[in-house]
Amino acid sequence: MEFSIFTVMTAEIITIGDEILIGQVIDTNSAFIAQQLNLSGIAVKQISSVSDNKEHILKALDEAAQRAQLILITGGLGPTKDDITKHTLSQYFNSGWRLDEEVLKHVEFLFNSRGLQVTPINRKQAEVPDNCTVIVNANGTAPGMWFEKDLKVFVSMPGVPYEMKAMMLNEVIPRLKIKFKLPVIVHKTILTQGIGESFLADLIEDWENSLALHAIKLAYLPSPGMVRLRLSLSGTDEKQLNEVVDAKIRELQSLISQYIYGYETYGEEPPTLGTIIGKLLRKQHKTLATAESCTGGYIAHLITKVAGSSDYYKGSVVSYTNDIKVLELGIKEANIINYGAVSSQVVEAMAAGIKHKFNTDYAIATSGIAGPTGGTAELPVGTIWIAVATANGVFSEKFLFGNNRERNIERASLAALNMLRKAIEN
Amino acid sequence: MEFSIFTVMTAEIITIGDEILIGQVIDTNSAFIAQQLNLSGIAVKQISSVSDNKEHILKALDEAAQRAQLILITGGLGPTKDDITKHTLSQYFNSGWRLDEEVLKHVEFLFNSRGLQVTPINRKQAEVPDNCTVIVNANGTAPGMWFEKDLKVFVSMPGVPYEMKAMMLNEVIPRLKIKFKLPVIVHKTILTQGIGESFLADLIEDWENSLALHAIKLAYLPSPGMVRLRLSLSGTDEKQLNEVVDAKIRELQSLISQYIYGYETYGEEPPTLGTIIGKLLRKQHKTLATAESCTGGYIAHLITKVAGSSDYYKGSVVSYTNDIKVLELGIKEANIINYGAVSSQVVEAMAAGIKHKFNTDYAIATSGIAGPTGGTAELPVGTIWIAVATANGVFSEKFLFGNNRERNIERASLAALNMLRKAIEN
Repeated sequence: MEFSIFTVMTAEIITIGDEILIGQVIDTNSAFIAQQLNLSGIAVKQISSVSDNKEHILKALDEAAQRAQLILITGGLGPTKDDITKHTLSQYFNSGWRLDEEVLKHVEFLFNSRGLQVTPINRKQAEVPDNCTVIVNANGTAPGMWFEKDLKVFVSMPGVPYEMKAMMLNEVIPRLKIKFKLPVIVHKTILTQGIGESFLADLIEDWENSLALHAIKLAYLPSPGMVRLRLSLSGTDEKQLNEVVDAKIRELQSLISQYIYGYETYGEEPPTLGTIIGKLLRKQHKTLATAESCTGGYIAHLITKVAGSSDYYKGSVVSYTNDIKVLELGIKEANIINYGAVSSQVVEAMAAGIKHKFNTDYAIATSGIAGPTGGTAELPVGTIWIAVATANGVFSEKFLFGNNRERNIERASLAALNMLRKAIEN
Repeated sequence: MEFSIFTVMTAEIITIGDEILIGQVIDTNSAFIAQQLNLSGIAVKQISSVSDNKEHILKALDEAAQRAQLILITGGLGPTKDDITKHTLSQYFNSGWRLDEEVLKHVEFLFNSRGLQVTPINRKQAEVPDNCTVIVNANGTAPGMWFEKDLKVFVSMPGVPYEMKAMMLNEVIPRLKIKFKLPVIVHKTILTQGIGESFLADLIEDWENSLALHAIKLAYLPSPGMVRLRLSLSGTDEKQLNEVVDAKIRELQSLISQYIYGYETYGEEPPTLGTIIGKLLRKQHKTLATAESCTGGYIAHLITKVAGSSDYYKGSVVSYTNDIKVLELGIKEANIINYGAVSSQVVEAMAAGIKHKFNTDYAIATSGIAGPTGGTAELPVGTIWIAVATANGVFSEKFLFGNNRERNIERASLAALNMLRKAIEN
């Protein structure tokens, strides 16, 4: 196989805001921008976060322009930021000022549609450097700005994530595709559940070594309860790149099929266990209910944050006391006394109880000790029983997670959804 | 008032990992590190994310060392990263290699305690540059490394967030406090709910202008459903700084008391509406239940992710179909037919129903159209009714949020908890 040699276009991302440097806000914007650039075949060389300070921003712009052809900037726009980015860019590009009628109309429209008068500080957002192309902000008042200088492109976007995201997807990426001839990078990501990173690495070592022959890069992306494996390959012929990567994925499937729960299409929202279960239930016209103790409604949330989940999900009883378990789920008090609330007997009765009561095809139940306190020698913090009820009966499994309450809730919820997924698929 | 002039110690953060540059992982580590540094009076000048590439890392180290006295590095450690950071640092500091017996014992301990044998790639983690001080990783196998060169300190930490966090809190910050004499920065954050950023800015404009006299910096930190206001002041005398900031906060309270739901102590986990409600209920020995339709278990999750919530929270019914509303919450079918499920009549009956059934002092209920589809002319997407039941009766309020399902779930859940908070407090 041959790959033609080409120059990958490079970009840098600059985020502006003291709130990032003092750590009070997590920079989610850069990840989104980087993802969209990669999808379009633009390699991000560096991401830099700098303060709301003119000299610092000017220096960051200079450094980035030395390394990359495209510089994307977020933050420092808007009335409460003193529009520091806008003023700095006007200095950097020796701009004058003009009033943009379209932006003014848009700001007025946004305020009027909420029955409000435009405030003077919001009116100022229509004043822009006279040598930029304005990009209207569909979801807010601060406009985007596109500058060109010495064959380099600089784009400034607002820092509010949903304003920036819409602008990036609907305006900036389409304009970049018109402006530049871009190469192709194929990314495919395999989603695994139930095996730790280093055990996975040992298991697929030979396969991993074989990737170098095809110039495929592999990344391990661990997060609570799961490890994602990302394959990346650059070139020019998308079809050929996909074939090479797909062949390696088929090899991987034969090695670790029991741990794979799904695949991610790069640039699309990755499927969650919630969306995967939703698709399976919808396809089979089946319904689901949940009975949650230690996970406290989080499983219900993972299911219901999927649009359209009311088609297959009937609801949940969150039973945070033994009384409610007895009252709502028909658990025998004797079972709670004899076996304890955290036991296979009780969690299986919870699953069977909610399945019967809500009249569904499947049910999930959890009972455990999320922590950080409440553990005993026999049942340490992190012990969680999970049950799944199907038309063929009820089964349960015991898990031992760690000491962190939020991680235990998250890991138990994902493990429960994965048990259900396997039960539906088999 | 006088402030002595002192030099603020500066730091830079470098995160290493292609996964950040292609946007598949959000860099949460930098926010945590920056927060901890600021709490200790160290100003973060820049945060840079670079690729898993030796030359790029070396260049980033050089640039950072020119600007700051302390350089903190995360990522690029561990078996599946080829320990790129460790090898690069050994080159940067002209190190030889040594086997660290303490790290080896720790790795063996971690594996043995899980009943496992140490794998060869994990054994390699005990090989470290011979001119660094090793920092044991309490939660994982990749050790931290502390280097000193030309009066500058470089610390390398693993990229797995909970490993890095424990190392930063328990090892790195205490060592920095011993090594350097640090100034004081006071940050105080006011939490508001129910007013947008620009309206808040208009309301407190005069107060905001008065902050400059005291050299106090103000930041607006908006997130779905809330705006946080952060005041920051640097100096040497912590007591005096606190007095100055507290006086301005008292002035703010008199301006916007109806929007303030809490305060954040810098460096501590910020109180959520869940923790604030928990404290109120616990203090009054009162109990709570919830009945959720459109919020789908998310309110239950916000309540139960607080440790010890089983003391006051009895549970929830997530009623995702009308059947379940009738069956579980005693809603009259006629009311659903006459008024619709999204109505004050139904949501108030849900709150009263769950309060009665679960025998609690308070109850919250939600019913609405989370979206993105399912809206009508009378009830557009984002319409959500919220009811609160107390000993004095039931009341409800109608909200109109936006088109984004996840944001609507989040905003409605926060609005519901805030309604409850006000009801308990009055």
